[in-house]
Amino acid sequence: MAVSNNTIKWVRSLALKKNRDKERCFVAEGTKCVLDTIGSFAVESLFCTDEWARLHDVGKAIIVTASQLERMSMLKTPTDVIAVYCMPTYSIDYSAIGETLSLALDNIQDPGNLGTIIRIADWFGIHDIFCSDGTVDVYNPKVVQATMGAISRVRVHYCDLSELFGNLNKDVPVYGTFLDGRNIYEEELGVKGIIVMGNEGKGISAQTEKYVTKRLLIPSYPTGATTSESLNVAMATAIVVSEFRRRMI
Amino acid sequence: MAVSNNTIKWVRSLALKKNRDKERCFVAEGTKCVLDTIGSFAVESLFCTDEWARLHDVGKAIIVTASQLERMSMLKTPTDVIAVYCMPTYSIDYSAIGETLSLALDNIQDPGNLGTIIRIADWFGIHDIFCSDGTVDVYNPKVVQATMGAISRVRVHYCDLSELFGNLNKDVPVYGTFLDGRNIYEEELGVKGIIVMGNEGKGISAQTEKYVTKRLLIPSYPTGATTSESLNVAMATAIVVSEFRRRMI
Repeated sequence: MAVSNNTIKWVRSLALKKNRDKERCFVAEGTKCVLDTIGSFAVESLFCTDEWARLHDVGKAIIVTASQLERMSMLKTPTDVIAVYCMPTYSIDYSAIGETLSLALDNIQDPGNLGTIIRIADWFGIHDIFCSDGTVDVYNPKVVQATMGAISRVRVHYCDLSELFGNLNKDVPVYGTFLDGRNIYEEELGVKGIIVMGNEGKGISAQTEKYVTKRLLIPSYPTGATTSESLNVAMATAIVVSEFRRRMI
Repeated sequence: MAVSNNTIKWVRSLALKKNRDKERCFVAEGTKCVLDTIGSFAVESLFCTDEWARLHDVGKAIIVTASQLERMSMLKTPTDVIAVYCMPTYSIDYSAIGETLSLALDNIQDPGNLGTIIRIADWFGIHDIFCSDGTVDVYNPKVVQATMGAISRVRVHYCDLSELFGNLNKDVPVYGTFLDGRNIYEEELGVKGIIVMGNEGKGISAQTEKYVTKRLLIPSYPTGATTSESLNVAMATAIVVSEFRRRMI
């Protein structure tokens, strides 16, 4: 079985962001996740069991034992295949931002939330997500897993959001949800602009809030009832993006 | 410190559904979760550290050490307080179902999804959720945690869904989402009825599908684009319920 201990350690090291950033590589695990993504990223290495290789035709694979895979894996349940991909490089096209709908994420912390938001973006045809540098890493294995393949169709950029908003044309609307915003169901919503979603506990930061030009609210029902303090950020994203798309379908 | 090993084991045993069902008790852990729920359920026992008791006025508490709490806890991170609650008993009021909007869950498996769906129901003023017997237990500690207190405002019933639908008045609509359903944004939606959400992988079961009178679809955008196979069930619930409520606000 042609894999050294050093290779196993190297794959395992990609659990940490600092190592992913240094190596410019990330990991996808499990049959579904690998098959959903393998056509979309350059493959650095593909490790799988003999049996997996016989069942799937995915080009050059490195055959390893189940126990070697287990040592590489970041998941609790054993897997038959691990792909190491090269990170793509995306550049920000400011003129394109003005023509379409995008998302900006202001310090989203939970990997499951980021993964789910990428799925929502994919479903509703949003191709660019701009993350503040403090947002959880999209190449975190839990995020990759949670996107269910949507990571291969949505470009996720990391940047200084103030710089991003500062560089926008003045006529590009920036939407954000706030408890004192205006009822999203009744507001006029455009077909272009950036929708900002805030941190799980703190919402949109004061720094980012300065750039928001349209303050929205998802009203609870009935008005004034005692209810949860807020919706989970991924839920709120689903509802807000659905509201934009509804008017365009 | 007035707590025996048997008590610690008993609390810990409530991690399992069969023990919760036998004891008719469930657990809430952590300051936020306990404070959000303590007014809503009968308290069987409240275990906390000396310091927590000094900071919070929640009635009779059993003071324990941090290490005892750790032994009771089902969470990875240590907690200062664990409440054991008596399970409430709800009965199904068929005439009330016909007057309002409710949810039915057909074999939802993931505790996080159920918790999130309960939050959505709470936000949008849905007071009853009918779960198939195969749906994950609402008193699973992960579900209790994920509801962020919403569990105290939404009644979650477990029942045979076929029996539930069979007992409904014929004029109560049953909504479900299907890939061949009709565009939810364009359909007429009532102010009453039951919205069925299906299992994470399999969707709505054939058994339940027979009772669905309105087949809906959340269309992806743009029409016909390659996108994820489906939205996560909690996302879909958020979008569907928002669509019903939008028309009532």
